[in-house]
Amino acid sequence: MGSEFLKTRDISQVDTILKDLFEKLYVEPKFDKVSLDHALFRVLSDDIYASINLPPFDRTLRDGFAVKVQDTFNATEENPVTLNLLEVIGAGDVPQKEIKTGYCSEISTGAPIPKGANGVVMIEFSEKEGDKVHLFKTSYPGQFIALKGSDIEKGDLVLKKGTILSPEKIGVLSALGFSKIKVDKKMKVAIISTGNELLSAEKQLEYGKIYDVNSLALHAALKTYGTNPVIKGIVPDEYEVLKNTIKNSLNDFDLIITSGGTSAGAGDVLRLVLDDLGKVMVHGITMKPGKPTIIGEIDHKLIVGLPGNPSAALIVLDVLLAPHLKSYSGLTDKASSKINLPLSTRFHSARGRIQYVLIKVVDNKVHPILKDSGAINALVEADGYITIPKNVELIAEGTNVDVILFDDFSINLS
Amino acid sequence: MGSEFLKTRDISQVDTILKDLFEKLYVEPKFDKVSLDHALFRVLSDDIYASINLPPFDRTLRDGFAVKVQDTFNATEENPVTLNLLEVIGAGDVPQKEIKTGYCSEISTGAPIPKGANGVVMIEFSEKEGDKVHLFKTSYPGQFIALKGSDIEKGDLVLKKGTILSPEKIGVLSALGFSKIKVDKKMKVAIISTGNELLSAEKQLEYGKIYDVNSLALHAALKTYGTNPVIKGIVPDEYEVLKNTIKNSLNDFDLIITSGGTSAGAGDVLRLVLDDLGKVMVHGITMKPGKPTIIGEIDHKLIVGLPGNPSAALIVLDVLLAPHLKSYSGLTDKASSKINLPLSTRFHSARGRIQYVLIKVVDNKVHPILKDSGAINALVEADGYITIPKNVELIAEGTNVDVILFDDFSINLS
Repeated sequence: MGSEFLKTRDISQVDTILKDLFEKLYVEPKFDKVSLDHALFRVLSDDIYASINLPPFDRTLRDGFAVKVQDTFNATEENPVTLNLLEVIGAGDVPQKEIKTGYCSEISTGAPIPKGANGVVMIEFSEKEGDKVHLFKTSYPGQFIALKGSDIEKGDLVLKKGTILSPEKIGVLSALGFSKIKVDKKMKVAIISTGNELLSAEKQLEYGKIYDVNSLALHAALKTYGTNPVIKGIVPDEYEVLKNTIKNSLNDFDLIITSGGTSAGAGDVLRLVLDDLGKVMVHGITMKPGKPTIIGEIDHKLIVGLPGNPSAALIVLDVLLAPHLKSYSGLTDKASSKINLPLSTRFHSARGRIQYVLIKVVDNKVHPILKDSGAINALVEADGYITIPKNVELIAEGTNVDVILFDDFSINLS
Repeated sequence: MGSEFLKTRDISQVDTILKDLFEKLYVEPKFDKVSLDHALFRVLSDDIYASINLPPFDRTLRDGFAVKVQDTFNATEENPVTLNLLEVIGAGDVPQKEIKTGYCSEISTGAPIPKGANGVVMIEFSEKEGDKVHLFKTSYPGQFIALKGSDIEKGDLVLKKGTILSPEKIGVLSALGFSKIKVDKKMKVAIISTGNELLSAEKQLEYGKIYDVNSLALHAALKTYGTNPVIKGIVPDEYEVLKNTIKNSLNDFDLIITSGGTSAGAGDVLRLVLDDLGKVMVHGITMKPGKPTIIGEIDHKLIVGLPGNPSAALIVLDVLLAPHLKSYSGLTDKASSKINLPLSTRFHSARGRIQYVLIKVVDNKVHPILKDSGAINALVEADGYITIPKNVELIAEGTNVDVILFDDFSINLS
């Protein structure tokens, strides 16, 4: 039983199953409190209300002179009004003197408006002469004054829960005096590579072995989906070892991703572990690559077994899981990650399975990379992949196709 | 002299000056050696040649039986050929026995091809009976065998200097056995906020003071341009303090960015420091906001003084410096960061200056945000900005405009 596929499912069914699983398993919100210099592109956990007024005091928008505007009403370019200078108020200063009729204070942009003043004449329309100031222009009540709370009022809802903290939103939080902020915790993902043939890079290569590719490639891809991935290392195709590694990861991780060991041939141990510890929801998907992909649940945690071939693992992760992971992370897929270009050659597709084909773009044409999905050189050349629907067997040369670009995986990290 | 603008320059002149400065000042390449799990979206410093063959040995692409293909030539579905089973070779195993005429070995995908075998019959066309194997299909020389070096040959140029390490390229490096890799060092940028009115978030708000916005907002934006920014803190508008802060940063940083204190009014100290320690290349740009921006050079390091207003500082940074910083970082601007939508209202622009206007997008229309550039609420609402050429005074309602989206700042972090 463990070595046979369940009823094979198509992508849309699997997508529904995953959606339901994400909704069921990951309801309880988790938070991080991070300092603002580590908050870039994180997602706000709470609505943010202003705890202070902005500006926090009446301040001037221009360099100039704070006046009682009535004193300036007769000022013209030819006949200036002359006022007595009380003091010079720089930004950050506290005004010491109240403005009375016949008096003014010099004031720099951002400085508080002194008591008694109700307008500002710009420095360009003034002339200083000792402690006298000649003003060549009138002012009106409120001119060049930003009133306390006029930008943002204390108590205002400023940023909504779910806001992605781009640089300007981090600026907003800074203005309100936040140094730390509550953001959604990233989903913690365990990455397990299975296979007796796998070696980690620190080891010397031995006959019959190859270096593990998927741990680091999936780690990088999972970062771009807004998760916090952790490499748990290489596990041999042995039931007990894999079972224990998964059991030990259940507490610390939200999601466990394995690769390798999922085909119906030798070494199909993940299926046995899932049958034993939890349950298999999906085993066998009408997609190419990705047919032997397993989706299961143990102790309210999602376990996904990806194919062992690197390009297959990356594509299946991107097609099946990325939309749900991004959505959980508060990120949205960008339309920009698709381009539409003509195919350089005619292409025969697998019948009855939706097919994902690595491609490179050369001279604005899409060239399918026709290598087995274990080929590393395919990853060297690939710019992205195209999707060929289940019922399409042949695409003619020159047909325009949508390309998902690998580089556009690259949104929203911190 | 220090308090007057130099000859005001337009954006294209400034761009040329900056391009020349980047080429002159930042020629000496600097490197980091990073482990692959920290290499996401970093830029390769060297060409990468394969130090091993991929696959490193002849291996099978399918589960099945390794045979001398001559032994299978008479096999049909009705009349199988029967061979003696020598051993079972799993992935990662070392074959112990040579295949001789009349013999075969069972073999799992990825396992080494045993000596003497020259083809593989898939398990689907076989039947095991004790130590006998019935094969129902012929094989041909080389079938289902990936020869040593057939994917990537030892000595091949695999990835070129300048390659951005997206997940699949990290997979390629993993396959070649790299655990660390030489990447271009990120440009180290010092951020200094100037202004007597500025407080850091840990402090209690006092009358006349406001919280510093630019340190953290510029820090976040600079990360998205592929640099390594460091906040040096708040400096009062005092010549000696700013001069010493800049002097102390020259050794440790590639670029120093200040904000505030650049206007021709009170507190124009950066200009004085530059006149004293180095030279001013640009002071005064025909752009709005950003007119008082200063660009200078001290000890072969670039110093840029941005306006103090947060939205002005972010826009000027994005318009003037981001293209050069991204280019230095090996990143490319994505066309996708622009969208083209109709303006919701007619808009009057400043004459004689290229103008950048914060906008929000509502119902697929572009709404200009008409607030002074000190307004924090403008940053709350802004989705991006539009550019209005120098010679355009009026844009009619409904005119399509290009919008630079703030969220699309978000490329390529690690």
